[in-house]
Amino acid sequence: MITITTKQEMQQLAKQHKAEGKSIGFVPTMGYLHVGHLKLVKEAKKSNDIIIMSIFVNPLQFGPGEDYDAYPRNPERDKQLAEEAGVDILFMPSLENMYRNEKSIGMTVLRRTNALCGINRPGHFDGVVMVLSKLFNIILPDRAYFGLKDAQQFAVVSGLVEDLDFPLKLVPVETVRESSGLAVSSRNVYLNDKERIQAAAIYKSLQKAKELISNGVQDIEAIIGEVKDYMKANMKADIDYVELLSFPELEQIASPKGKVIIAAAVKFSKARLIDNIIIDI
Amino acid sequence: MITITTKQEMQQLAKQHKAEGKSIGFVPTMGYLHVGHLKLVKEAKKSNDIIIMSIFVNPLQFGPGEDYDAYPRNPERDKQLAEEAGVDILFMPSLENMYRNEKSIGMTVLRRTNALCGINRPGHFDGVVMVLSKLFNIILPDRAYFGLKDAQQFAVVSGLVEDLDFPLKLVPVETVRESSGLAVSSRNVYLNDKERIQAAAIYKSLQKAKELISNGVQDIEAIIGEVKDYMKANMKADIDYVELLSFPELEQIASPKGKVIIAAAVKFSKARLIDNIIIDI
Repeated sequence: MITITTKQEMQQLAKQHKAEGKSIGFVPTMGYLHVGHLKLVKEAKKSNDIIIMSIFVNPLQFGPGEDYDAYPRNPERDKQLAEEAGVDILFMPSLENMYRNEKSIGMTVLRRTNALCGINRPGHFDGVVMVLSKLFNIILPDRAYFGLKDAQQFAVVSGLVEDLDFPLKLVPVETVRESSGLAVSSRNVYLNDKERIQAAAIYKSLQKAKELISNGVQDIEAIIGEVKDYMKANMKADIDYVELLSFPELEQIASPKGKVIIAAAVKFSKARLIDNIIIDI
Repeated sequence: MITITTKQEMQQLAKQHKAEGKSIGFVPTMGYLHVGHLKLVKEAKKSNDIIIMSIFVNPLQFGPGEDYDAYPRNPERDKQLAEEAGVDILFMPSLENMYRNEKSIGMTVLRRTNALCGINRPGHFDGVVMVLSKLFNIILPDRAYFGLKDAQQFAVVSGLVEDLDFPLKLVPVETVRESSGLAVSSRNVYLNDKERIQAAAIYKSLQKAKELISNGVQDIEAIIGEVKDYMKANMKADIDYVELLSFPELEQIASPKGKVIIAAAVKFSKARLIDNIIIDI
């Protein structure tokens, strides 16, 4: 594995690989790698000649008061994990290398943001599409791999790739879970022992919704109510939202049909966790 | 020369050429080709294996009341001229093929637009950067060729390529002029015979400014005044603006120094013409 720290060098090398007819699989990350990221690498290795992983904590996607400075970082461990997973090129640019001081272009996400995390994180997805547009242009992937844990991110990035005609295919990858069902996340380190056990109730409550839908329950409010009741009974945490929407449009629906997402965000003392399940009815 | 009418087919072919190590030179146009466009092709042929020209009248860059519907079109003649000039692939997509009905992403130009044509054409450059982002992703050029007649467009597109890290080099090409000095433009067809003769005064007035600067005149207002006086004495047309600014930043300056642009826009009965000269002092 080689590590590259400037976008100029990375783009040059990517161009070279493309000119040699090699396919590139891209795994974008903010580092602090866990098995979820490594699963993305594993998927990427099935279909591409060269695997490139980026590690860049993108300040544009953090709002004021969010955890940019406190976001967990461990570059030495990340390098080791990436190499063991079979990454060929690790791209770790500095903030100064990635962004100029004065921006010429603003990008705004117009759809799929007025729901779930988008409501309480104004500007978050604008920052996501800006950094991904840059990374796509620097790394020149044939395929880019995204975990479905952040399903709204996948929905928004699909819109980006379609609207701007990026020459790549997005590949969604199933959420990796601990044996308790808790979705693996970099932010899980902020949970204390008690919270970590309780947090398993998030996924269990979503499965409850799935069960209700399978049993023919049509009332969206009733389903959401049962999910919240289960959470309240099993966790000491604030429920940020529980929503049942069409996917990937993320629009309100009158009853569960077609492809839907049931998604939740929950705040523990030091960690805000998200999870979801997508069902094709 | 082959003609391609869908972005899917175009992108597929571009990817194929890149995988074979071929370099791509790109000449974006709105059609109604003239010697100015053909000069871009000639420049592109010097440095690239494959020359791709796009012809697409982009509605996003026309404001309400602007001449989108009336913009001159002549696809059959364009095909012949492109082929004679040595274009390898002519890309002529339909409106429906290029844009989806509902946009997911908005792009806004934040700098270099509060001057020259940008002031009176709100949203114009937003439409330009959107269509060029798409075309860059569809055509995958190593180099893209832009005439300096629209110097503000070149300045704005430079900002786009830098901010989003597009993997290509922008190549500026000198404005082509008729023997009278009139800059060649698709919109010149709207001039009547008398106006066509008068319009030569635009370039002559800009040269006058250049002469004054060479002679050491420091007063920007005085230089602009002389340009306007020359225009008024020689043309029956409305002066939209005459400006002397830094280039490519397009900012106000106290006196002429460094790289500057003297630019003008003039309205005849049925045509609004622009021209400029860029001087390195």
